Amino acid sequence: MEERISDILNKIGYPSDLRQLSEKQLPDVCEALRRFIIDQVSVHPGHFASSLGAVELTVALHYVYNTPDDRLVWDVGHQAYAHKILTGRREQFHTLRQKDGLRGFPFPAESEYDTFSAGHASNSISAALGMAVANNLSGSDRKVVAIIGDASISGGLAFEGLNNASSQPNDLLIVLNDNMMAIDKNVGALYHYLTHITTSQQYNLLRYKAYNTLKKHKLVSDKFRRAVLRFSNAVKSLFSRRQNIFEGLDIRYFGPVDGHDVLKLVRILRKIKDMKGPKMLHVCTIKGKGFAPAEDQATIWHAPGRFNPETGERIKEDTTGMPPKFQDVFGHTMVELAKLDERVVGITPAMPTGCSMNIMMEQFPERTFDVGIAEEHAVTFSGGLAKEGRLPFCNIYSSFMQRAIDEVIHDVALMNLHVVFCLDRAGLVGADGPTHHGAFDLAFFRVIPNMIVASPINEHWLRRLMFTAATQVEGPMMIRYPRGRGSLVDWRCPLEAVPVGKGYCLREGNGDTAVLTLGPIGMEAAKAIEQTGMDVAHYDMVYCKPLDEQLLDEVFARYKHVITVEDGVRNGGFGSAVLEYANASGYEGEITRLGLPDEFVEQGTCKELYRLCGIDAESIARTITRGV
Amino acid sequence: MEERISDILNKIGYPSDLRQLSEKQLPDVCEALRRFIIDQVSVHPGHFASSLGAVELTVALHYVYNTPDDRLVWDVGHQAYAHKILTGRREQFHTLRQKDGLRGFPFPAESEYDTFSAGHASNSISAALGMAVANNLSGSDRKVVAIIGDASISGGLAFEGLNNASSQPNDLLIVLNDNMMAIDKNVGALYHYLTHITTSQQYNLLRYKAYNTLKKHKLVSDKFRRAVLRFSNAVKSLFSRRQNIFEGLDIRYFGPVDGHDVLKLVRILRKIKDMKGPKMLHVCTIKGKGFAPAEDQATIWHAPGRFNPETGERIKEDTTGMPPKFQDVFGHTMVELAKLDERVVGITPAMPTGCSMNIMMEQFPERTFDVGIAEEHAVTFSGGLAKEGRLPFCNIYSSFMQRAIDEVIHDVALMNLHVVFCLDRAGLVGADGPTHHGAFDLAFFRVIPNMIVASPINEHWLRRLMFTAATQVEGPMMIRYPRGRGSLVDWRCPLEAVPVGKGYCLREGNGDTAVLTLGPIGMEAAKAIEQTGMDVAHYDMVYCKPLDEQLLDEVFARYKHVITVEDGVRNGGFGSAVLEYANASGYEGEITRLGLPDEFVEQGTCKELYRLCGIDAESIARTITRGV
Repeated sequence: MEERISDILNKIGYPSDLRQLSEKQLPDVCEALRRFIIDQVSVHPGHFASSLGAVELTVALHYVYNTPDDRLVWDVGHQAYAHKILTGRREQFHTLRQKDGLRGFPFPAESEYDTFSAGHASNSISAALGMAVANNLSGSDRKVVAIIGDASISGGLAFEGLNNASSQPNDLLIVLNDNMMAIDKNVGALYHYLTHITTSQQYNLLRYKAYNTLKKHKLVSDKFRRAVLRFSNAVKSLFSRRQNIFEGLDIRYFGPVDGHDVLKLVRILRKIKDMKGPKMLHVCTIKGKGFAPAEDQATIWHAPGRFNPETGERIKEDTTGMPPKFQDVFGHTMVELAKLDERVVGITPAMPTGCSMNIMMEQFPERTFDVGIAEEHAVTFSGGLAKEGRLPFCNIYSSFMQRAIDEVIHDVALMNLHVVFCLDRAGLVGADGPTHHGAFDLAFFRVIPNMIVASPINEHWLRRLMFTAATQVEGPMMIRYPRGRGSLVDWRCPLEAVPVGKGYCLREGNGDTAVLTLGPIGMEAAKAIEQTGMDVAHYDMVYCKPLDEQLLDEVFARYKHVITVEDGVRNGGFGSAVLEYANASGYEGEITRLGLPDEFVEQGTCKELYRLCGIDAESIARTITRGV
Repeated sequence: MEERISDILNKIGYPSDLRQLSEKQLPDVCEALRRFIIDQVSVHPGHFASSLGAVELTVALHYVYNTPDDRLVWDVGHQAYAHKILTGRREQFHTLRQKDGLRGFPFPAESEYDTFSAGHASNSISAALGMAVANNLSGSDRKVVAIIGDASISGGLAFEGLNNASSQPNDLLIVLNDNMMAIDKNVGALYHYLTHITTSQQYNLLRYKAYNTLKKHKLVSDKFRRAVLRFSNAVKSLFSRRQNIFEGLDIRYFGPVDGHDVLKLVRILRKIKDMKGPKMLHVCTIKGKGFAPAEDQATIWHAPGRFNPETGERIKEDTTGMPPKFQDVFGHTMVELAKLDERVVGITPAMPTGCSMNIMMEQFPERTFDVGIAEEHAVTFSGGLAKEGRLPFCNIYSSFMQRAIDEVIHDVALMNLHVVFCLDRAGLVGADGPTHHGAFDLAFFRVIPNMIVASPINEHWLRRLMFTAATQVEGPMMIRYPRGRGSLVDWRCPLEAVPVGKGYCLREGNGDTAVLTLGPIGMEAAKAIEQTGMDVAHYDMVYCKPLDEQLLDEVFARYKHVITVEDGVRNGGFGSAVLEYANASGYEGEITRLGLPDEFVEQGTCKELYRLCGIDAESIARTITRGV
């Protein structure tokens, strides 16, 4: 890299420094940022392709807007690395996604430049609108910009924001960062719509230029302007074969513009910055821009792990002899279930690769539905499928399932419909941090009537529970399992049903203490028991609801001290369910509940976080030792 | 009423009977239905104006479609009375909304004609799409129709459904029943958009006729048809000043048509019934149609209570000497808070009258936001307002708040933003039944980090808690209170702060038993204690989180038997929080938790339902007597 380029980032501590540069230097800044991101992420893995695509946009926004006084609200935040690097965090960038390091997403507690929490898609328009309206009430002329991707804008929350954008006086700018990609390929009518808009780019540019020429010569009166706008919208719809949805929602629409031409972006942002009323700038970008392998295969390079920054060769972990990921066991088992039972269908909101539904999608494309970022729709759509005799397996990451709790209650559980909810990424997820930990699902799902709630200790039990859900159950059932790998290399056991609401004894014990676990955290507990060398019993309860009351009666009769362990919030979850039953049945022994604390758990490796929360083997062992 | 009209309903037990009639008779059916609804609802109160507006649409749908084999999916279900009357339930209609009677909303367990649960807005498109796709997979040519109002279509879930409607092969029909009204006046850009479409009605009708003429004469080839459509869309946007959003989403759009011309509706439904692909029929109706007072004041007549069917005079309950509704205390207190603190703003998703935010709206129109049916947006928008220094009071009915749990976690609690969530209709709501009971809020909110959770026993405490939330708290706080009236006629106490996380002793007791309550259900407990004549202590805990551990230590030290009472799910809620602390602190006495069972609670009067759930005074008294 030329010295001119490699040096330029050193001059930019904060956006105020960036704004001292001449426009001519901005392409160099972009080049340097791109190099920096490639070098850093190649050794400190994180989200990659999205941030490469947003480099020019980020530079242009910080160059034109007076950040941090003006507010940039990034949606999801996969794309915000350049933003972090330009806002005082270049030196710490190597700590990205590590414990006590920089967070992978914008987070207000980390920097005043991060204006709102991000990680769950589609919240930026509503949040930015709240900020813009607040500023309007205060008489401040601070600007607010929401930056949202074409995948996130399909979420219901984003639409609610768009629909409200013109309801109150505000000057919000929504930048639609359109790379025609979700993490996986994009779906939904809006996506096709955006593609069509884009194909009519030339016309739109023409229209924009014409309007500006008229304006410059003061040939546009307000009244006339509206007529021109109306006419040109009509003509535009002839060109684009579509209607402009956003202008239908009273949001002025500009674009699409080339999102990799930083000077053009600067010019257009300057022009629309002071315009009154809500407006949208449609920017077309390429996910992975500037790194050829990522441009070619954006899904793989969404979060590629370590790689060689020169050759683009991904440094693949040697997984020989390692157990499979739970998600892959889910994916392969779906195929088997689909073959056995033609009612079986699969539903995922925009995570076919992430949850391995793509394995089924390849074999049964007509029976697998990727509905885009739309968790609520995924659940209600599953309810509709079930009502007409299909057997939906609806896979949603645990923390994203929070978006659809009402639909689980109202559109599935209330009618006792046979829908199987598979919650991937349940419990602590590691580097993605507090927005992504699947902490609340047990506490939420176990209080919903008609719901069965289970978690497999390993891959065999995941397969058994999925088969049980398909064959032994008539109402809704939730199965939760964590991110990452299980514990059995030889995972492909026969598909057998297990009794609903039955746990089992993993290890007999003749002491005073029994450990009751739910899910793969049971493996930590098993290690803990080994470590103590004590004669402690271990029960894998399998079901959080219904609880195996018969087994609990036996446990309460035999042991004076019961320890529950779960990878979910300590209050209200599995341990509390055991406690409720213990109280109802008059158990007089001691119950210790281990689980996540009543605070948002930070990022780190799962190992670090289990320790932090007191649910790693060592901590459990200490609790066992202390308790008897 | 003429005999011809009054007799015609007797001939219609089921839609199959309706379909035996000639088209000419349909206006009489509509007239008879309207009369029947007016007569019945005048003495058996329920939702009124919406159902009057949907009479012709309902008749036309059942006349053209082969129900129940074809599926009608009603959104919300406020409008479904004519549907209930035509589908075998006329004779039971007088039991509407009573215990063991007909439900106020469509409910599959009640009738095979009710295809999906309704009550929470915006679910019909996703549910119907699931059904349509399931039928497509089975090779069935069963038709599916979703009927959704112009208010419900603004919800994010509805948009997610629209965005997915064209993604899978299906022949779904979405009927947009546009009466330009939510329960309160409609808001949002989409509403304005629909108004504008409607003003161009003449052009659209013209276009529709032209197309049909061409088609009849086989002048429209497929290729040419598309060109015509494209051109006519462009011209339409000139007329309507807007673009057609729905066609932008690949949904064929028809309309708007007069929703009170039953013969025209029949004709157009017949024409589009067998068309392939997703389509929308935009029907314009008048809320309250055919009953002049309701046409004039649709908000009041949404659910008017008893009235004189001849004069339209509403039979007002004599409320002299009665305590106020909690919602009105909320509304008046908001005005006081807004005067005291200019940061205070109010947010409601489409319920300004229902939660009495309209009281503040009149005095502070710029600081009060009705965002339409958009609970998710309401919460995230509040987060944005708080982030910029405003103090939002976001009022959402407890059961509708389930829609926005993720936003509460991700967009408010995670940043520890100072947003006050006021949950009206918390606990059992009576006649609205299982979809509307606010059963889960305590179990959900108390496990969210940073959250304070409280409930006032009466109006004074509601005011104190609201003032405390505004003045003593820096993060998120939730205050829940029930539907209906409090217990204090003289409700306007001074606004005073109370300590956060502190309960108090309502009644000292020297026996073995203490009753701990949260919220107005405490009044039932107080009655219960009186009834037993025993020396029982009573503590109003005020806060579910943080729990008053000091007070609990005292209680545990003095009493052998503790009874918790809450108007929310028994598992996971307030009682479980007390139990968790009792377990942690080594309490050896007995704890009995009273609350809602692990099943969906039916409709009935609150008094009936409290008894059913064992939380009325008599049941609590029995528990007290049994326990010591």
